[in-house]
Amino acid sequence: MRYLIVVFGILGSIYGCTGTYKNEPHQEVKVIRKGSVILLKPDKLDLYKDLHANPWKSVNEKLKECNIRNYSIFYRDGYLFSYLEYTGTNWEADMGKLAADSTILAWWKLTDPCQEPVPFARKGEWWADMEEVYHLD
Amino acid sequence: MRYLIVVFGILGSIYGCTGTYKNEPHQEVKVIRKGSVILLKPDKLDLYKDLHANPWKSVNEKLKECNIRNYSIFYRDGYLFSYLEYTGTNWEADMGKLAADSTILAWWKLTDPCQEPVPFARKGEWWADMEEVYHLD
Repeated sequence: MRYLIVVFGILGSIYGCTGTYKNEPHQEVKVIRKGSVILLKPDKLDLYKDLHANPWKSVNEKLKECNIRNYSIFYRDGYLFSYLEYTGTNWEADMGKLAADSTILAWWKLTDPCQEPVPFARKGEWWADMEEVYHLD
Repeated sequence: MRYLIVVFGILGSIYGCTGTYKNEPHQEVKVIRKGSVILLKPDKLDLYKDLHANPWKSVNEKLKECNIRNYSIFYRDGYLFSYLEYTGTNWEADMGKLAADSTILAWWKLTDPCQEPVPFARKGEWWADMEEVYHLD
Protein backbone atom coordinates (compact mmCIF):
# COMPACT_ATOMS: atom_id res chain seq x y z
CA MET A 1 0.00 0.00 0.00
CA ARG A 2 2.96 2.34 0.48
CA TYR A 3 3.20 3.02 -3.25
CA LEU A 4 -0.51 3.66 -3.43
CA ILE A 5 0.17 6.57 -1.18
CA VAL A 6 3.18 7.81 -3.15
CA VAL A 7 1.21 7.57 -6.36
CA PHE A 8 -1.86 9.20 -4.94
CA GLY A 9 0.36 11.98 -3.69
CA ILE A 10 1.43 12.65 -7.24
CA LEU A 11 -1.76 11.92 -9.10
CA GLY A 12 -4.39 12.76 -6.55
CA SER A 13 -5.05 16.10 -8.08
CA ILE A 14 -5.59 14.56 -11.51
CA TYR A 15 -7.87 11.69 -10.64
CA GLY A 16 -9.33 12.59 -7.27
CA CYS A 17 -13.08 12.89 -7.57
CA THR A 18 -15.00 14.89 -5.09
CA GLY A 19 -18.41 14.90 -3.54
CA THR A 20 -20.04 15.85 -0.31
CA TYR A 21 -21.24 13.65 2.46
CA LYS A 22 -23.57 14.40 5.31
CA ASN A 23 -22.27 12.90 8.52
CA GLU A 24 -24.01 15.22 10.94
CA PRO A 25 -27.14 17.30 10.49
CA HIS A 26 -26.30 20.53 8.68
CA GLN A 27 -22.64 19.58 8.30
CA GLU A 28 -21.18 18.47 4.98
CA VAL A 29 -17.76 16.89 4.60
CA LYS A 30 -15.98 17.10 1.26
CA VAL A 31 -15.12 13.61 0.04
CA ILE A 32 -12.44 12.64 -2.48
CA ARG A 33 -13.06 9.19 -3.96
CA LYS A 34 -10.08 7.10 -5.10
CA GLY A 35 -10.02 3.90 -7.14
CA SER A 36 -6.87 1.91 -7.93
CA VAL A 37 -5.79 -1.51 -9.16
CA ILE A 38 -2.88 -3.87 -8.56
CA LEU A 39 -2.10 -7.55 -9.07
CA LEU A 40 -2.06 -10.13 -6.27
CA LYS A 41 0.49 -12.92 -6.63
CA PRO A 42 -1.41 -16.22 -6.84
CA ASP A 43 0.67 -17.90 -4.14
CA LYS A 44 -0.04 -15.01 -1.76
CA LEU A 45 -3.82 -15.08 -2.04
CA ASP A 46 -4.45 -16.90 1.24
CA LEU A 47 -1.95 -14.81 3.18
CA TYR A 48 -3.33 -11.55 1.79
CA LYS A 49 -6.92 -12.52 2.51
CA ASP A 50 -6.07 -13.67 6.04
CA LEU A 51 -4.24 -10.44 6.79
CA HIS A 52 -7.13 -8.32 5.52
CA ALA A 53 -9.82 -10.41 7.15
CA ASN A 54 -8.09 -9.68 10.46
CA PRO A 55 -6.44 -6.29 10.00
CA TRP A 56 -4.44 -4.88 12.89
CA LYS A 57 -6.55 -2.54 14.97
CA SER A 58 -3.66 -0.06 14.99
CA VAL A 59 -3.56 -0.01 11.17
CA ASN A 60 -7.27 0.72 10.91
CA GLU A 61 -7.00 3.40 13.57
CA LYS A 62 -4.13 5.09 11.77
CA LEU A 63 -5.99 5.04 8.46
CA LYS A 64 -8.98 6.69 10.10
CA GLU A 65 -6.75 9.21 11.84
CA CYS A 66 -5.44 10.06 8.37
CA ASN A 67 -9.01 10.72 7.16
CA ILE A 68 -9.50 7.55 5.13
CA ARG A 69 -12.90 5.96 5.46
CA ASN A 70 -15.28 3.65 3.60
CA TYR A 71 -12.20 1.82 2.33
CA SER A 72 -12.73 -1.52 0.56
CA ILE A 73 -10.40 -3.84 -1.32
CA PHE A 74 -11.99 -6.27 -3.79
CA TYR A 75 -10.39 -9.36 -5.34
CA ARG A 76 -11.02 -11.37 -8.48
CA ASP A 77 -8.72 -13.73 -10.39
CA GLY A 78 -5.43 -12.03 -9.62
CA TYR A 79 -6.75 -8.47 -9.54
CA LEU A 80 -7.14 -6.29 -6.46
CA PHE A 81 -9.23 -3.19 -6.72
CA SER A 82 -9.22 -0.55 -4.00
CA TYR A 83 -11.95 2.01 -3.31
CA LEU A 84 -11.63 4.61 -0.58
CA GLU A 85 -12.94 7.98 0.45
CA TYR A 86 -10.73 10.74 1.79
CA THR A 87 -12.35 13.31 4.03
CA GLY A 88 -9.36 15.40 5.08
CA THR A 89 -8.09 18.66 3.64
CA ASN A 90 -4.42 17.78 2.99
CA TRP A 91 -3.94 14.45 1.25
CA GLU A 92 -0.17 14.76 0.93
CA ALA A 93 0.27 15.56 4.63
CA ASP A 94 -1.99 12.70 5.72
CA MET A 95 -0.25 10.24 3.42
CA GLY A 96 3.10 11.42 4.74
CA LYS A 97 1.86 10.77 8.26
CA LEU A 98 0.81 7.25 7.27
CA ALA A 99 4.13 6.53 5.57
CA ALA A 100 6.02 7.63 8.70
CA ASP A 101 4.08 5.39 11.07
CA SER A 102 5.93 2.32 12.33
CA THR A 103 2.81 0.14 12.47
CA ILE A 104 1.84 1.03 8.91
CA LEU A 105 5.40 0.31 7.74
CA ALA A 106 5.30 -3.09 9.46
CA TRP A 107 1.96 -3.85 7.78
CA TRP A 108 3.27 -2.88 4.33
CA LYS A 109 6.29 -5.10 4.92
CA LEU A 110 3.82 -7.99 4.95
CA THR A 111 1.47 -6.83 2.20
CA ASP A 112 3.87 -5.37 -0.38
CA PRO A 113 5.47 -8.75 -1.23
CA CYS A 114 1.98 -10.09 -2.00
CA GLN A 115 1.41 -7.57 -4.77
CA GLU A 116 2.88 -6.50 -8.07
CA PRO A 117 1.95 -3.57 -10.29
CA VAL A 118 -0.29 -4.09 -13.32
CA PRO A 119 1.65 -4.22 -16.61
CA PHE A 120 0.36 -0.78 -17.55
CA ALA A 121 1.49 0.90 -14.32
CA ARG A 122 3.59 4.01 -14.73
CA LYS A 123 7.23 4.08 -13.63
CA GLY A 124 7.29 4.11 -9.83
CA GLU A 125 3.57 3.41 -9.58
CA TRP A 126 2.52 0.59 -7.24
CA TRP A 127 -1.27 0.65 -7.01
CA ALA A 128 -2.35 2.04 -10.41
CA ASP A 129 -4.55 5.05 -9.95
CA MET A 130 -7.85 4.95 -11.87
CA GLU A 131 -10.00 7.74 -13.25
CA GLU A 132 -13.58 8.06 -12.04
CA VAL A 133 -15.67 8.26 -15.22
CA TYR A 134 -19.11 8.03 -13.57
CA HIS A 135 -20.58 8.83 -10.21
CA LEU A 136 -24.07 8.73 -8.75
CA ASP A 137 -24.50 10.05 -5.20
CA MET B 1 -24.63 -3.07 -17.27
CA ARG B 2 -27.50 -5.48 -17.84
CA TYR B 3 -25.28 -8.49 -17.19
CA LEU B 4 -23.94 -6.88 -14.10
CA ILE B 5 -27.43 -7.14 -12.80
CA VAL B 6 -27.94 -10.72 -13.91
CA VAL B 7 -24.64 -11.72 -12.35
CA PHE B 8 -25.24 -9.82 -9.17
CA GLY B 9 -28.59 -11.53 -8.97
CA ILE B 10 -26.86 -14.88 -8.96
CA LEU B 11 -23.76 -14.05 -6.98
CA GLY B 12 -24.93 -11.26 -4.77
CA SER B 13 -25.40 -13.54 -1.85
CA ILE B 14 -21.86 -14.87 -2.20
CA TYR B 15 -19.94 -11.66 -2.60
CA GLY B 16 -22.24 -9.01 -1.23
CA CYS B 17 -20.57 -7.33 1.72
CA THR B 18 -22.64 -5.55 4.25
CA GLY B 19 -22.28 -2.65 6.59
CA THR B 20 -24.40 0.03 8.13
CA TYR B 21 -24.60 3.68 7.22
CA LYS B 22 -26.01 6.54 9.18
CA ASN B 23 -27.99 8.82 6.94
CA GLU B 24 -30.20 10.36 9.59
CA PRO B 25 -29.67 10.68 13.31
CA HIS B 26 -30.59 7.44 15.07
CA GLN B 27 -31.40 5.71 11.78
CA GLU B 28 -29.10 3.10 10.26
CA VAL B 29 -29.47 1.72 6.74
CA LYS B 30 -28.01 -1.66 5.91
CA VAL B 31 -25.59 -1.34 3.00
CA ILE B 32 -24.40 -4.05 0.62
CA ARG B 33 -21.19 -3.07 -1.18
CA LYS B 34 -20.52 -4.47 -4.65
CA GLY B 35 -17.34 -4.36 -6.73
CA SER B 36 -17.02 -5.64 -10.29
CA VAL B 37 -14.72 -5.43 -13.30
CA ILE B 38 -15.10 -5.47 -17.08
CA LEU B 39 -13.07 -4.44 -20.12
CA LEU B 40 -13.71 -1.31 -22.15
CA LYS B 41 -13.02 -1.58 -25.89
CA PRO B 42 -10.25 0.91 -26.76
CA ASP B 43 -12.18 2.45 -29.66
CA LYS B 44 -15.17 3.06 -27.38
CA LEU B 45 -13.32 4.94 -24.66
CA ASP B 46 -14.42 8.42 -25.73
CA LEU B 47 -18.02 7.38 -26.28
CA TYR B 48 -18.20 5.60 -22.93
CA LYS B 49 -16.67 8.51 -21.06
CA ASP B 50 -18.93 11.02 -22.79
CA LEU B 51 -22.03 8.97 -21.96
CA HIS B 52 -21.04 8.66 -18.31
CA ALA B 53 -19.94 12.26 -17.94
CA ASN B 54 -23.46 13.23 -18.98
CA PRO B 55 -25.68 10.38 -17.83
CA TRP B 56 -29.38 10.59 -18.57
CA LYS B 57 -31.25 12.01 -15.63
CA SER B 58 -33.84 9.27 -16.01
CA VAL B 59 -31.17 6.56 -15.70
CA ASN B 60 -29.79 8.06 -12.50
CA GLU B 61 -33.28 8.44 -11.11
CA LYS B 62 -34.13 4.82 -11.85
CA LEU B 63 -30.91 3.58 -10.25
CA LYS B 64 -31.71 5.54 -7.09
CA GLU B 65 -35.29 4.31 -7.14
CA CYS B 66 -33.81 0.79 -7.17
CA ASN B 67 -31.79 1.59 -4.04
CA ILE B 68 -28.39 2.00 -5.68
CA ARG B 69 -26.31 4.86 -4.36
CA ASN B 70 -22.68 6.02 -4.05
CA TYR B 71 -22.09 4.32 -7.40
CA SER B 72 -18.79 5.02 -9.16
CA ILE B 73 -17.15 3.58 -12.27
CA PHE B 74 -13.37 3.92 -12.56
CA TYR B 75 -11.25 3.48 -15.69
CA ARG B 76 -7.61 2.65 -16.32
CA ASP B 77 -5.93 1.23 -19.44
CA GLY B 78 -8.83 -0.84 -20.72
CA TYR B 79 -10.25 -1.81 -17.33
CA LEU B 80 -13.49 -0.55 -15.83
CA PHE B 81 -14.11 -1.05 -12.13
CA SER B 82 -17.52 -0.50 -10.63
CA TYR B 83 -18.22 0.24 -6.97
CA LEU B 84 -21.75 0.68 -5.66
CA GLU B 85 -23.78 0.48 -2.49
CA TYR B 86 -27.18 -1.16 -2.31
CA THR B 87 -29.50 0.03 0.44
CA GLY B 88 -32.67 -1.89 -0.39
CA THR B 89 -33.96 -5.14 1.05
CA ASN B 90 -34.57 -7.15 -2.13
CA TRP B 91 -31.70 -7.00 -4.63
CA GLU B 92 -33.24 -9.43 -7.12
CA ALA B 93 -36.54 -7.53 -7.21
CA ASP B 94 -34.82 -4.18 -7.63
CA MET B 95 -32.56 -5.50 -10.38
CA GLY B 96 -35.59 -6.99 -12.10
CA LYS B 97 -37.24 -3.59 -11.96
CA LEU B 98 -34.18 -2.00 -13.55
CA ALA B 99 -33.99 -4.61 -16.28
CA ALA B 100 -37.64 -4.02 -17.18
CA ASP B 101 -37.30 -0.26 -17.51
CA SER B 102 -37.33 1.07 -21.07
CA THR B 103 -34.91 3.91 -20.32
CA ILE B 104 -32.41 1.58 -18.69
CA LEU B 105 -32.70 -0.81 -21.65
CA ALA B 106 -32.04 2.06 -24.07
CA TRP B 107 -29.00 3.09 -22.03
CA TRP B 108 -27.59 -0.45 -21.98
CA LYS B 109 -28.08 -0.62 -25.75
CA LEU B 110 -25.48 2.15 -25.96
CA THR B 111 -23.13 0.98 -23.21
CA ASP B 112 -23.09 -2.81 -23.71
CA PRO B 113 -21.32 -2.63 -27.11
CA CYS B 114 -18.54 -0.60 -25.44
CA GLN B 115 -17.68 -3.40 -23.06
CA GLU B 116 -16.49 -6.98 -23.10
CA PRO B 117 -16.09 -9.41 -20.21
CA VAL B 118 -12.67 -10.03 -18.68
CA PRO B 119 -11.04 -13.28 -19.88
CA PHE B 120 -11.68 -14.89 -16.51
CA ALA B 121 -15.41 -14.09 -16.45
CA ARG B 122 -17.69 -17.04 -15.81
CA LYS B 123 -20.07 -18.27 -18.47
CA GLY B 124 -22.87 -15.74 -18.86
CA GLU B 125 -21.10 -13.20 -16.66
CA TRP B 126 -20.81 -9.66 -18.04
CA TRP B 127 -19.40 -7.46 -15.27
CA ALA B 128 -17.23 -9.88 -13.25
CA ASP B 129 -18.25 -9.79 -9.63
CA MET B 130 -15.41 -9.29 -7.14
CA GLU B 131 -15.02 -10.41 -3.54
CA GLU B 132 -14.53 -7.79 -0.85
CA VAL B 133 -11.44 -8.92 1.08
CA TYR B 134 -11.05 -5.82 3.26
CA HIS B 135 -13.28 -3.09 4.57
CA LEU B 136 -12.80 -0.15 6.90
CA ASP B 137 -15.87 1.88 7.79
